Amino acid sequence: MEVGFLGLGIMGKAMATNLIKSGFKVTVWNRTLSKCNELVELGASIGETPAAVVKKCKLIIAMLSDPAATLLVVFDKDGVLEEICSGKGYIDMSTVDPETSTKISQAITAKGGSFLEAPVSGSKQPAEAGQLVILAAGHKALYDLAIPAFDVMGKKSFFLGEIGNGAKMKLVVNMIMGSMMNAFSEGLVLAERSGLNPSNLLDVLDLGGIANPMFRGKGPGMLKGNHSPAFPLKHQQKDMRLALALGDENAVSMPVAAAANEAFKKARSMGLGDLDFSAVYEIVKMQKD
Amino acid sequence: MEVGFLGLGIMGKAMATNLIKSGFKVTVWNRTLSKCNELVELGASIGETPAAVVKKCKLIIAMLSDPAATLLVVFDKDGVLEEICSGKGYIDMSTVDPETSTKISQAITAKGGSFLEAPVSGSKQPAEAGQLVILAAGHKALYDLAIPAFDVMGKKSFFLGEIGNGAKMKLVVNMIMGSMMNAFSEGLVLAERSGLNPSNLLDVLDLGGIANPMFRGKGPGMLKGNHSPAFPLKHQQKDMRLALALGDENAVSMPVAAAANEAFKKARSMGLGDLDFSAVYEIVKMQKD
Amino acid sequence: MEVGFLGLGIMGKAMATNLIKSGFKVTVWNRTLSKCNELVELGASIGETPAAVVKKCKLIIAMLSDPAATLLVVFDKDGVLEEICSGKGYIDMSTVDPETSTKISQAITAKGGSFLEAPVSGSKQPAEAGQLVILAAGHKALYDLAIPAFDVMGKKSFFLGEIGNGAKMKLVVNMIMGSMMNAFSEGLVLAERSGLNPSNLLDVLDLGGIANPMFRGKGPGMLKGNHSPAFPLKHQQKDMRLALALGDENAVSMPVAAAANEAFKKARSMGLGDLDFSAVYEIVKMQKD
Amino acid sequence: MEVGFLGLGIMGKAMATNLIKSGFKVTVWNRTLSKCNELVELGASIGETPAAVVKKCKLIIAMLSDPAATLLVVFDKDGVLEEICSGKGYIDMSTVDPETSTKISQAITAKGGSFLEAPVSGSKQPAEAGQLVILAAGHKALYDLAIPAFDVMGKKSFFLGEIGNGAKMKLVVNMIMGSMMNAFSEGLVLAERSGLNPSNLLDVLDLGGIANPMFRGKGPGMLKGNHSPAFPLKHQQKDMRLALALGDENAVSMPVAAAANEAFKKARSMGLGDLDFSAVYEIVKMQKD
Repeated sequence: MEVGFLGLGIMGKAMATNLIKSGFKVTVWNRTLSKCNELVELGASIGETPAAVVKKCKLIIAMLSDPAATLLVVFDKDGVLEEICSGKGYIDMSTVDPETSTKISQAITAKGGSFLEAPVSGSKQPAEAGQLVILAAGHKALYDLAIPAFDVMGKKSFFLGEIGNGAKMKLVVNMIMGSMMNAFSEGLVLAERSGLNPSNLLDVLDLGGIANPMFRGKGPGMLKGNHSPAFPLKHQQKDMRLALALGDENAVSMPVAAAANEAFKKARSMGLGDLDFSAVYEIVKMQKD
Repeated sequence: MEVGFLGLGIMGKAMATNLIKSGFKVTVWNRTLSKCNELVELGASIGETPAAVVKKCKLIIAMLSDPAATLLVVFDKDGVLEEICSGKGYIDMSTVDPETSTKISQAITAKGGSFLEAPVSGSKQPAEAGQLVILAAGHKALYDLAIPAFDVMGKKSFFLGEIGNGAKMKLVVNMIMGSMMNAFSEGLVLAERSGLNPSNLLDVLDLGGIANPMFRGKGPGMLKGNHSPAFPLKHQQKDMRLALALGDENAVSMPVAAAANEAFKKARSMGLGDLDFSAVYEIVKMQKD
Repeated sequence: MEVGFLGLGIMGKAMATNLIKSGFKVTVWNRTLSKCNELVELGASIGETPAAVVKKCKLIIAMLSDPAATLLVVFDKDGVLEEICSGKGYIDMSTVDPETSTKISQAITAKGGSFLEAPVSGSKQPAEAGQLVILAAGHKALYDLAIPAFDVMGKKSFFLGEIGNGAKMKLVVNMIMGSMMNAFSEGLVLAERSGLNPSNLLDVLDLGGIANPMFRGKGPGMLKGNHSPAFPLKHQQKDMRLALALGDENAVSMPVAAAANEAFKKARSMGLGDLDFSAVYEIVKMQKD
Repeated sequence: MEVGFLGLGIMGKAMATNLIKSGFKVTVWNRTLSKCNELVELGASIGETPAAVVKKCKLIIAMLSDPAATLLVVFDKDGVLEEICSGKGYIDMSTVDPETSTKISQAITAKGGSFLEAPVSGSKQPAEAGQLVILAAGHKALYDLAIPAFDVMGKKSFFLGEIGNGAKMKLVVNMIMGSMMNAFSEGLVLAERSGLNPSNLLDVLDLGGIANPMFRGKGPGMLKGNHSPAFPLKHQQKDMRLALALGDENAVSMPVAAAANEAFKKARSMGLGDLDFSAVYEIVKMQKD
């Protein structure tokens, strides 16, 4: 299958590489075209503009850094919209808000094209290993068509229904994650202050029913005060806020998430927003010397 | 090594069996003596009373149902206290409160014996498989002596310091678990009400950084309204309360655990106390028809 | 002073009446013009359109039902904007969001007029008694000019600075009020369930340091399950949400307001949104029969 | 009526003085007897010991500093218990826990005497002005007998039923007060950070439906960082904890009180426990400089 790929950042480059290595014919485009060279050496073609890529391919995948970039690639001069048409499918795998996603979806479908939002769970390493989790929503037929590509880029893909559901699923997962991080931090501090060794707590947790990669991966660093940002606290707090807003729309009362959100807000107010979201631990720990 | 074993309930029987099969010489006692027969067939001796078992063995392990039973076995006529003395070690692996544990510890040590509280994490299956997690505290020398027995009964044992720390460690773990169950429930309900398939959420969670046996094991049943009690909600709420009280003593603010505790209390007031603690999900879900 | 008055609903009629009775020359307009008759009998003139009122008066006050109505009165054909100009001041006393207020402010000032948002605290009775609390923001000179009119309509007026501050002040007050209603409800239920007479609690509260008109006014009805809407719960919850959003913008952690908001959301999900916000009491009280 | 009065601290002295001035014949006792002199000048008699006072009077009132003192006065040599008997009534107006109260009640009634716990709401000033609020529980007949004395010492007295209810009522009131103080603090900080003048907020609040003496009295000081202790934060937090424990017993979920309690705990951990409970404001306000 001929696949177009727009955006060769850390994630996009890894994903496109996997497609090429699995035998897909890939035409790549990147705002800074020089970044395409490495992919060309692996066998990719270059498209001069997003429009050129769309003209050439029936299936186009985009992986861009933020909502602004996703909108530019579609709506700008020489953008996707100029060449999209019936028979062509556009898959945006960037992480964007539902409004952005809906806006792109409407523009694509108005021109006869089909559209899928497909944000992923997982960062650089899973992208390189083809182990992403893909949360797709939009045109089911396009999803079915894209499965071979998804199988290469991810360990699992989901079709979640209508546009917006991919973004919603990410919010729900991140909300649970944020509450868990607070629960974990409270436990670590409680252990420490009541005379237990928090390292022992890490070991005990890892042997039981709530053992999970996040506790295992972040716990030891947290105890040393290491919160170098994998997922910045301010972004985690934004996702908590958006998840709570989603709950508000649907009259879902979520007191634990609300309490966690306020803790993240306190962390922001104490200047920890750019650290990893595990830095909420410092707020729980904070006491008079 | 000659080991005495007091209490052959579901847990005790499995643990004693593992000791025998691993070559320990075991003398067993149980309130209903007939329950000893099965162990005798495997090679165990019988002690007529706790005192008789203590007289015969240097290392005695108890696994009883509740604090009342643990006190009786020690302080009653023909109890442990009558024969315990210097050179003998008593290990109580039952789950009891720190007060009970302290009372027993003081009585044993007053007679010259050494003592270890060693509550376990894990239920029937891990007990049978020798996969318990053992949270020991008290006399370090006794712990060192007991390691071969712990290695047979558990996959891992910890020495946590002074008496009471075993119970505290269990509280901290259960507190984190209770908050996580609330976070999980909120996520499931939010998914459902915002148009996502909560089964998909289970799958997505299980592929990510917060995947854990509890979500995996309980999630599908929860969605069907199945909350048959593995760990009753009223006990989970009691542990949350005790953990919060421990936090109060040590001036640890734990807003997420506090919010979770109030949700469990609401569940209790709605008559769900005897169901599994996953029934807090029903409280989050509750809405006008 | 010649004053224009747009909007003769329950509030507007009472306020305009007070102005007339205090000797102001008032020109009134209302979408349904027949509502003006009563005011005419008291001495008011009629303006056929908002524009006509603005043409005739230098000071124009509007008291309309919602943001949509406030926008129409300004921007529609024959609206305020057609005649507003330098030397004329427009005061919107309706309760609207900051965006609406800002939009109107910009349009008025672009034409050379001056503008004040001046939402009030207090409903029908205080309006009739001239006992409103007026939260004004915008052009200070216009505020100074309007003081005689404010003195007639309210017991106190505040100038709060830039546009938006009137709305913000209302949000902050309503947030405190919402948390207090939850605290009050929790206390009433706790009293009842622990064997106290909640009516006694009302009496004790009313004699102490936290005695306030809301507890006094709503308490007895709440105990009887009477929650006929003075301020609907869904609006109270909306204000909690907006106040929390304001806190989010400014990184203010407000865990008590967040917990109260979740309780109001639960009340909404149980179908109590159209009752008075005191109906959150029913959520706290809810238990298995 | 002949009345005995035990304990002439700040509160007791004021209360006994009011009784004398209203025509009661009062026999006083105090651990440091010299403190009785002032009362003797007003017309009081002196009792050498609590027992001597009980022997002389049919109605005895105690106002002591803490549970330990109340127990000593009753159970110690020359204590109340030596002379209490049928036909005599003992009223303890000290603030004590239900256990202490129950212990005293049982001892008094075993000797044939009747007993009332009657903690008060109000401190020095209301005591001097005879404006206390009296929360009595125990023997109704004794309450009826004591009404003339209560009418002199307080502006209002309540009979709340069985022993323990006086203490419970105080807990419920203090719980509501603690949540309100948090709500107030959150509002003040939100106002400040969103560009409003918090002094204006104080004024607006004082004109509306939630105006109350606590906001009015403590607000201005709080804004200046003045938290000199009228009611120490650590005692307020203890009362929140006890109220939450009472809720736990009765399966009452109180998420707002729970969130407030955690904020007070954080204040304790930051070293603010000896300041007034209004110091929780400093926790809400805390941010990176």
